Amino acid sequence: MTDFKFDLLATDGQARLGRVHTAHGVIDTPAFMPVGTAGTVKAMLPGSVAATGAQIVLGNTYHLMLRPGADRVERLGGLHQFMNWPGPILTDSGGFQVMSLAKLRKMDADGVTFQSHHDGSKHRLTPENSMEIQRQLDADITMAFDECTPFPATPQQAAESMRLSMRWAARSKAAFTPRPGYGLFGIVQGGIYPDLRAESAKALLEIGFDGYAIGGLAVGEGQEAMFATLDVTTPLLPEDKPRYLMGVGRPSDIIGAVMRGVDMFDCVMPTRSGRTAQAFTKRGTVNLRNARHQDDPRPLEEGCACPACRDHSRAYLHHLIRSEEILGPMLLTWHNIQAYQDLTRSLRAAIAEGRVEAFAARAAELEAQGDIAAL
Amino acid sequence: MTDFKFDLLATDGQARLGRVHTAHGVIDTPAFMPVGTAGTVKAMLPGSVAATGAQIVLGNTYHLMLRPGADRVERLGGLHQFMNWPGPILTDSGGFQVMSLAKLRKMDADGVTFQSHHDGSKHRLTPENSMEIQRQLDADITMAFDECTPFPATPQQAAESMRLSMRWAARSKAAFTPRPGYGLFGIVQGGIYPDLRAESAKALLEIGFDGYAIGGLAVGEGQEAMFATLDVTTPLLPEDKPRYLMGVGRPSDIIGAVMRGVDMFDCVMPTRSGRTAQAFTKRGTVNLRNARHQDDPRPLEEGCACPACRDHSRAYLHHLIRSEEILGPMLLTWHNIQAYQDLTRSLRAAIAEGRVEAFAARAAELEAQGDIAAL
Repeated sequence: MTDFKFDLLATDGQARLGRVHTAHGVIDTPAFMPVGTAGTVKAMLPGSVAATGAQIVLGNTYHLMLRPGADRVERLGGLHQFMNWPGPILTDSGGFQVMSLAKLRKMDADGVTFQSHHDGSKHRLTPENSMEIQRQLDADITMAFDECTPFPATPQQAAESMRLSMRWAARSKAAFTPRPGYGLFGIVQGGIYPDLRAESAKALLEIGFDGYAIGGLAVGEGQEAMFATLDVTTPLLPEDKPRYLMGVGRPSDIIGAVMRGVDMFDCVMPTRSGRTAQAFTKRGTVNLRNARHQDDPRPLEEGCACPACRDHSRAYLHHLIRSEEILGPMLLTWHNIQAYQDLTRSLRAAIAEGRVEAFAARAAELEAQGDIAAL
Repeated sequence: MTDFKFDLLATDGQARLGRVHTAHGVIDTPAFMPVGTAGTVKAMLPGSVAATGAQIVLGNTYHLMLRPGADRVERLGGLHQFMNWPGPILTDSGGFQVMSLAKLRKMDADGVTFQSHHDGSKHRLTPENSMEIQRQLDADITMAFDECTPFPATPQQAAESMRLSMRWAARSKAAFTPRPGYGLFGIVQGGIYPDLRAESAKALLEIGFDGYAIGGLAVGEGQEAMFATLDVTTPLLPEDKPRYLMGVGRPSDIIGAVMRGVDMFDCVMPTRSGRTAQAFTKRGTVNLRNARHQDDPRPLEEGCACPACRDHSRAYLHHLIRSEEILGPMLLTWHNIQAYQDLTRSLRAAIAEGRVEAFAARAAELEAQGDIAAL
């Protein structure tokens, strides 16, 4: 079985073209990872997700440990088999969702105790059992258990939170059982404070991980502050390991982050937007619920290979949304995942050809032209 | 362009193997037509519907005239183009759904006035404008506008309702514009009363239609009364025209009706059940919400070619249902449509080989063994 490794294939300024090798296959980077929260990328068959070009999906430890349960997923052959996704899977550590979803959270230096938002049942996550749960799920990429620093946070709050996460990162590393093709990622924290980001990166490098995530961004700080934080963080990370910006983002966020040396992304935005009638296009988002689409025979986006654009009109998509037909979310989710995969595919081509600046400028220009439906 | 016609290819007792030729392709009979109420077979892409073997889908005049509107569908190229279903389409006349869904219905000898269940807007259906709306939708098979006789009904009520429908059938025929490959079906009414069914069939034959539907059944009379009514009705219908039993039914209903000379069926049961966790199998229905499936690694139904059975376990389907994931209804709807298509495909093979009695006996035996999950 292959080792978990990252090949840096080309660079264009800070932007990187690469390939991550995992137990269940390769991931060409820059990569966008569709979110499959509860063992399904919502409203899509796994084969359809793969058809968009996605090579890896994300699973949420918090959701899966509560339902159907990590023991059960393991008994059923692991998450790949359970959800019929034979490619690579990344699982988060559970920490972020405990903070955003669970009830009656109680943090201590060792971990966090909480109640399920489904049924109030009591659970506990620590670095050690987060590693164990992610092993049961059979994640190709395991995330260190950390605390996502809230925003805004004072320098002191951000420092304390980051140092706790660094202690947990060391414990995650100690508890992680290496297997060929399986990797563990550390997560740089420190909020918007460059010195804390530097301290965090240094701590993680001393521990040593197979990849480095940048956490605690896209939590309300705005794109400018996010890019500023990336500018001081990615140069601290080793060239020969993949870099993953967690929970990001809109297409322009992704383009800007790629140009700052980020390789991997995940975000619920394309899937969630697909269920609320929002479509991502090269000219920004379009709300298909709007009545101006009702007689529009044109495809949502010319040249897109997804079935929403290939087989249907904006008028039909509008009709599905208005009629609350399940096919509406199905088609718009597919389109949005396709749009994100097309974006990262275009970024990879642009980096390979040394024209990522021109690509980014053109993408910004197109988006500035505004809503495709107004054309 | 081809003429609308029916080839009777083989018989086995009363059961018939046939082929309907329409402007948009052929329909091998016995055929089950998935219901695409509002221009979509709920929770399925049209290509997936076709992949199950379905050759024709049904559209509902009542739903489509209200939203998106027949004028709009016509402007957008007709229902085939609007919903991206290049094959044959049958539309009902709108009468049945006016009675079951619309508000403030007012019947008169000429037609029915009603308010939309969406927004209270006022509409009217008559034989003449039902024909016009179905032409705008571009239905390959147009249904005559009739009144679905309520059940129970006294002989006098059933007679009066049937005679009104026969007058409307004559007006439907007069208002229908013949086009090559497009057909108009009359609907035999008369409740559970053999003499009224005979009177109705005679009236329709005098008018002359391209096919004959049997209406007013599966409304609460029970399978025995339904079969008894078929026994006295199908012998009255011409051999060289297709016969369509409207709104039926469960697999055993379809098998029994095929053995009584029926060729075509439609029912919301497979799609609606798919959205409520009920799966049709050769051993009857299974409720995937039930906790006994939560650790079951077996496919829903061995040998079924649908993605629910081919790619996933009962445990996973159960998890999707419990988690209210859209993929649950998507997979179970697909399975149920596949199960119905497999049933009619098997019936066609059995008729061709002169073993429909044996097939029916075996199907009844399997269903009597009960729920597949208990095995």
